[in-house]
Amino acid sequence: LCAIADVVGVGLGVIIGYFSHPAPAAPIYPTENPTISKLLMDEMKAKNIMNNLKTLTSRPHIAGQEQEEIVLVDWIKQQWTEAGIDSIVVHPYDVLLSYPKQNDSNYVSIKLANGTEIEQSQRKELVIDAEQNDPNVVDPFNAYSPPGEPEAELVYVNFATIEDFIALNRTYKINTVGKICISRYGRIFRGDKAVHAELYGCIGLILYSDPLDYTVPWSGVYPEDWFPPTGAQRGTLWVDNGDPRTPNYPSIRDAWHQSNSSLTLPKIPVTPIGNIDAIKYLSKMGGPEVPTDWRGGMNITYRFGPGFALEHVNSLIKMSVKTTNQVATIHNVIGYVRGAVEPDRYVLLGNHRDAWVFGAIDPSSGTATLMELVRGFGAMLKRGWRPRRTLVFCSWGAEEYGLIGSTEWVEELQKELQARAVAYLNVDIAVQGNYSLAANGVASLSQAVFDAAKTVSNPNPTEVSSGRLTLYDTWKLRYPASVGDKPSYYGLGSGSDFTAFLQIIGIPSVDLRHTYDQSIGLASYPVYHSVYETFELVNKFVDPGFKIHLAMAQVWGELARKLADVPILPVDCRVYATDLAQKRDALYQQYGSKMESNGIDFSQLNDTILIFTTSADNIHKRIASIDSTKHVISAPSQHNTYGSTAFPAVVDAMFDIDVDPDQTGRWDEVRRQYSILVFHILSAAATLNPTV
Amino acid sequence: LCAIADVVGVGLGVIIGYFSHPAPAAPIYPTENPTISKLLMDEMKAKNIMNNLKTLTSRPHIAGQEQEEIVLVDWIKQQWTEAGIDSIVVHPYDVLLSYPKQNDSNYVSIKLANGTEIEQSQRKELVIDAEQNDPNVVDPFNAYSPPGEPEAELVYVNFATIEDFIALNRTYKINTVGKICISRYGRIFRGDKAVHAELYGCIGLILYSDPLDYTVPWSGVYPEDWFPPTGAQRGTLWVDNGDPRTPNYPSIRDAWHQSNSSLTLPKIPVTPIGNIDAIKYLSKMGGPEVPTDWRGGMNITYRFGPGFALEHVNSLIKMSVKTTNQVATIHNVIGYVRGAVEPDRYVLLGNHRDAWVFGAIDPSSGTATLMELVRGFGAMLKRGWRPRRTLVFCSWGAEEYGLIGSTEWVEELQKELQARAVAYLNVDIAVQGNYSLAANGVASLSQAVFDAAKTVSNPNPTEVSSGRLTLYDTWKLRYPASVGDKPSYYGLGSGSDFTAFLQIIGIPSVDLRHTYDQSIGLASYPVYHSVYETFELVNKFVDPGFKIHLAMAQVWGELARKLADVPILPVDCRVYATDLAQKRDALYQQYGSKMESNGIDFSQLNDTILIFTTSADNIHKRIASIDSTKHVISAPSQHNTYGSTAFPAVVDAMFDIDVDPDQTGRWDEVRRQYSILVFHILSAAATLNPTV
Repeated sequence: LCAIADVVGVGLGVIIGYFSHPAPAAPIYPTENPTISKLLMDEMKAKNIMNNLKTLTSRPHIAGQEQEEIVLVDWIKQQWTEAGIDSIVVHPYDVLLSYPKQNDSNYVSIKLANGTEIEQSQRKELVIDAEQNDPNVVDPFNAYSPPGEPEAELVYVNFATIEDFIALNRTYKINTVGKICISRYGRIFRGDKAVHAELYGCIGLILYSDPLDYTVPWSGVYPEDWFPPTGAQRGTLWVDNGDPRTPNYPSIRDAWHQSNSSLTLPKIPVTPIGNIDAIKYLSKMGGPEVPTDWRGGMNITYRFGPGFALEHVNSLIKMSVKTTNQVATIHNVIGYVRGAVEPDRYVLLGNHRDAWVFGAIDPSSGTATLMELVRGFGAMLKRGWRPRRTLVFCSWGAEEYGLIGSTEWVEELQKELQARAVAYLNVDIAVQGNYSLAANGVASLSQAVFDAAKTVSNPNPTEVSSGRLTLYDTWKLRYPASVGDKPSYYGLGSGSDFTAFLQIIGIPSVDLRHTYDQSIGLASYPVYHSVYETFELVNKFVDPGFKIHLAMAQVWGELARKLADVPILPVDCRVYATDLAQKRDALYQQYGSKMESNGIDFSQLNDTILIFTTSADNIHKRIASIDSTKHVISAPSQHNTYGSTAFPAVVDAMFDIDVDPDQTGRWDEVRRQYSILVFHILSAAATLNPTV
Repeated sequence: LCAIADVVGVGLGVIIGYFSHPAPAAPIYPTENPTISKLLMDEMKAKNIMNNLKTLTSRPHIAGQEQEEIVLVDWIKQQWTEAGIDSIVVHPYDVLLSYPKQNDSNYVSIKLANGTEIEQSQRKELVIDAEQNDPNVVDPFNAYSPPGEPEAELVYVNFATIEDFIALNRTYKINTVGKICISRYGRIFRGDKAVHAELYGCIGLILYSDPLDYTVPWSGVYPEDWFPPTGAQRGTLWVDNGDPRTPNYPSIRDAWHQSNSSLTLPKIPVTPIGNIDAIKYLSKMGGPEVPTDWRGGMNITYRFGPGFALEHVNSLIKMSVKTTNQVATIHNVIGYVRGAVEPDRYVLLGNHRDAWVFGAIDPSSGTATLMELVRGFGAMLKRGWRPRRTLVFCSWGAEEYGLIGSTEWVEELQKELQARAVAYLNVDIAVQGNYSLAANGVASLSQAVFDAAKTVSNPNPTEVSSGRLTLYDTWKLRYPASVGDKPSYYGLGSGSDFTAFLQIIGIPSVDLRHTYDQSIGLASYPVYHSVYETFELVNKFVDPGFKIHLAMAQVWGELARKLADVPILPVDCRVYATDLAQKRDALYQQYGSKMESNGIDFSQLNDTILIFTTSADNIHKRIASIDSTKHVISAPSQHNTYGSTAFPAVVDAMFDIDVDPDQTGRWDEVRRQYSILVFHILSAAATLNPTV
C-alpha cells in the first residue's frame, strides 16, 4: 500500500515541484528584509499574551467538548481573521476519546475483610480557590483505561519501568501476577507503565505523584507555592499516536474504523491519585523494605508488599474505575501566510489547544503565545512584508489523548507535506518555569535555534544586570553543552505534536519551551495536568508580567521568520554528521564490546559516518559557492505476480469472499482497503493543487 | 524504520533540491534542440545491433557465472567508454541464486511397481544445431526449487491457478494432498503455481509447455519454425523481488542476511519438462476426463488422475530434482550522461543482461538495442549536444531470478532516486515478434509514448506500402484501444525491472517491446527460456535484417530524449484521472453490487475521483499559462515512548539480550538492525552528493 501511494504521489510530485512556482516578478533570489526581525519583536506585547491566556483558561477545555471544539475554535478563527493572515482552514476528525463517568468519579480504597471500604481517595481534587470551581472540570482519570473494580493485594513497583519489573521478579522475588500495583509517576511515559503492569500480570495500576519527584524540600504547598498534594496527574495511556481506530490513515469522511474490541488499548484499569491519598495506602503496606533508590520522599517506610501489614493484613486495595471510550469530533485550525517567492515551501508552527482542565501552562501558555505571534505576523503583512516561503500556523486538537489532531492531519496531508514542508517548529508548553530556554530538535537546525535565541532580549532583569543580555546567554550559562561553547540541544523523542512530522514524514523539527531548573530532579512541574493549572497560578508563580511568554513569542517567531525568509535555508548537515558520530560513540560505549565479541564490525559504522561527513562538508562548500544575487492504483495481483490489477488491495480483499467463514473479518478488510483507496486518491489530488 | 530513514532523507532533500543546480549559463528555460531527434535516429544502425546480439549470445550467460558477470560486464564498460558517455559505475551484490546439479540434471520418470524407472524425460534439451552445443548450457530447472525425489500419483491441475485448485477440490472432488501435480505453463506466473500446489498439499510440481499455449496449428517445429517440442521453459519460482535474503534493504558490503532456512522459498520440488516428454505422462493418466476448457493441444485425452491407467495403474510418477541455492556475485552496469540544466533529474533506461541460456530474445534483443542507443547518444554528445536532464543507462544483473539486480539497486539508491528520478523506461525483450509495438506503463506517460512512436519509421515494408508510415500507425491498427482513436496501452504488473521503480519508490514507468500477434493466444513466444533462443533463430525467424530492432532503439531513444530534453515534462495527469475512472468502472462491474449490499458507498469513490480530475485539469491549465521563454537516527525508545534514543532499533534489539534464551535469534536481529543503520547513513550521504 505504501508503495502504491507513492505511485500517485511521487510521480506527480516531480511535475509539481517544477511548475507550481509562479513566474517571479522580483529577482529570483531576493535577500531577506533585515528590518522585519526587529519590527516583529517590537510589535508583540506581553499584555496581549496575558489577555489571551485569560480567555483560553476561562473554562476547562478538554478535547471533544464544547468549550474546546466550538468556543475556542471560533475565537481563534476570529482572532486570526482580524490579524489579516491569508486563509484559515478547520480540519475536523471523528476520533476515539475517553472520559471518566460524570458524578461517579474514579476512586481507590482499602477494603476490609468484612467488606467495608475505608480510606477512600478523593474523587474530585480539592477546590482551594474559586478559580478551580467549575462544573465542567473533568475529574482525575487516565484516558483509555477500561472500566473495572478490581480488588487485590497491593504491590509497590517504583516507576513501573521494565527494569523495575525485572528487578521485582528476578532480584526481589515479588510475584505481581493477580496484584494491583502502585507506581510513582515519572522517568517514563505513563502509557508504558500500564503496558509493563499488564505484561507482568497485574490486574490494576494506581499512579501517584511522589513529592520526591514533584517538589523540592524548600518548596511550600499550593496555594503558597506550586506543589499541590491534593492534585492528581491526568494523562493518556495510549502508547501510539493518532486516533487508535485508524492507524496509518486519517479519520476523515466515512473512513472505516477498526472495531473497539480489536484496538491495542490497556486491558487493566488504571487511575491516578494525589500525594495526599497515596500516603494512606503506601504507609500501611507490608512485605520487605524497598532498596534506597526505590524510596520516595514521603515520611514513611516504603515496602514492596504484597498487601498490607498489621491490622490490615487481611484487607485488600480496591479500585473503582468508570472510565469509558467515546467517539467525538476534534478540530485543527490551520492558518496560512502565503510565501512570495516559494509558496510551495512551508515553514510550520504548531501548538495544541486542548487541555486536561484549564491548561494554563499545558498548553495554553503556548497557545496564548501563538496567538500573539499570528497577530504580529499579520501586522507585518499590513506593513507590506511577505515571507519568501509560506508560513503555516497550526492549532492542534486532542494532543493530550495521543497527539491525535496533528497525527491525523499529517496522515491526511502526507504527500503534500513531504513535498513541501521545510521545518516544523513546535511549542507545547511555552513557559513552565523562569530558569532558561530549552530546545530539542534535529541536529541540523541547532545553529538556527541558537541564532534566533541570540536576537531575543533577556526577560530576566537579574541576568541582564549580570551582562547576559539575550535568551541565548542565559541558556548557554544554565544548560551548557557537554562539548563546545554553546547551550545543550538534544534530540526529540515523542510526547508532543512534532512526532508525526518527524517520525512519519521526516520533516526536520524543533520543540521549544522555557523551563524551571531541570537539575533539581522534578519529573514535571508540580501542578502538571491537575486542576490547579490556572491563570492565577501562572500570573503569580510562573511568569508575573508575562515577559517570559513574550520572549518565547520572539524566539519562536524569529526562528520561523528566518526559515521562511532567507534564500539559503539555515540547515547544517555538518552538525548532523557530528551528531551521528556522537551517537556512534554512545552506542559503542554502551554495547560496543558486547557487539564486537559477537562479530559485529564497528569500522563499518565508522566508515559510513565518515562518508556522510565528507558529503556534508562538500554540500556546504557548494552552498558557499552559490551566486546569491539571483500505487492503491495498480499493482501485481496476490495470486498472479505477473498480472496488473486495478485497485489491487480492494480486489485482493474481495477475492473468493463468499466462501470464507469469517464474513465479518473479510468485509472489515474490504471496508478498510476501500477507505484507504479513497483517501489516497484525495491525497494525490492535493499534491496537484496550487499552494494556498 | 521507514520513518527513521525519512528523517535523514527528506529533511536533507529539501536543501538539495534548491541548491544542487549549478548557476545556469544559458537561459533558465531553453527549448529542446529539434534537430537532435532525427540526428539520433539516423546515427543508429541495424547492422550494429546485429553485431551486438552476436557478441551477447556467443555463449550462455546465466546470472552469477563468468560469461555474464565478467566477460559481458567488461565488454559493456568498454563499449560505453568508447561511446563517450560521462561516467560508468558497476554495482556488485552478493545474492542467493539457484542452479541444477552439473552432470546430474533433473528429470521425471514413471516408476513401475517393481522399482524400474521408464519413460525418463530428457535431462538436456536436444542439440539440433551446432549453435546450441555449448558445455556451459545450464540444463532445464526452476530456480529456488528445493532438491528432492518425490514419488506419487500424478494429478493434472490445468494452469495451477487458485481457481483451478478450487475447482479441483470443490467441483471435481479431486484430492491433491500427497500427489505430484503437473501443470501447463501459462496464464499466471510460475512461482504462483508452486505456491498454489504447496498450499493444496502437493509434494511435487511438474511444469510443461502445452502446444495449445505455445504454438499455433499452422506452425511447424524447430528448426523449420520456432516451436521446439524438445525445449523446456526454465524460470524462477521466487514470488517476491530482489535477493530473498535481504527483503527491503540492499545486499551491499557486509549486510546481514536472513538464514536460508527462514526464507519463504518453495518447499516442494519443481521442474520443467518439454512437450515431447509431457505427452508420455499425460497420455497414460487415469481418472475422469477434464472439462473442455482444461484440455490442451496434444492429441490425447486429458484426464485429472490421480495416477495412471491401464498397465500403469500401479506405477507412480517420480521426480529427480537436484537444484540447490547458491550465493553468487551479480553486477549492474550504470552509465550516465549528465544533464546540462537539471542534472539532478534523472531519466532512466534499463534492460537486464542475464539470460537462462543464450537469451537471443530474452533479454539480449533488448541489450543489443540498448548498446546501440548508448553509442547513438554518445555520438550526439560528440556533436556538442547535451540533454537538459541526466540520462541514466542501466544494465541489470540477475533479472531472471526475481528482478534481483534492479531491486537491490533501487533499495540501495532509494532516497536519491525518489528525489531525482523523472521516469524509468524499461525494455526487457526488445523484439519477440514482427507484428506490432506494444507498450505498458503508467497512464500519465501514454501520450509521450504515442508521440515517440509517431516519429519512428515503420520497419515493415508491407505496412509502409499500405500507407502506415510509422510504428504508431501499425500499433494503432493492430492493437486499437477500446475507447478513442489510439493504440491500446495497459498498466504494469510485475515481471521485469520496472517493478522496483514503480512499486517500491513510485517512479512513473513504461515497458516497451515489439511482439507477435497476441490474439493467437500464445502464453509466450515458443522458444521462451529454452536452449533454442539463439542468434540464428532471431536472424532467421524473428527479425532478419534487424530493422525492427532498429525501430525499437529509435522509439526508446526518442521517448528518453524527449523526457530528458523538453522544459515541461510530457506527463499528463488528466489521463491518469481518466484511468482512475475506468478502473472504478471495472471494479464496480466486478464487485459493485456485492460491495454496495454490504454497505460500501460507491459515491465516495466517485467523489474523490472527481476531485482528482478537477485538480488534474487545473494543473494543466496552470502549466499552459507558464511563460516558457525563461530517521535509523533518533526515535522513541521501545519501553519509553517519551524518551529519545540514539540508533533506537539497535538499542532496542540489544535491550536485556543476555538473559534471552534465544541468543541466536536475538543476535541475528541486532546484526540485521546494525546493517540497516549502516545502509541508511550511506543512503543519506548519497542524497548530499552532487549529480554525476
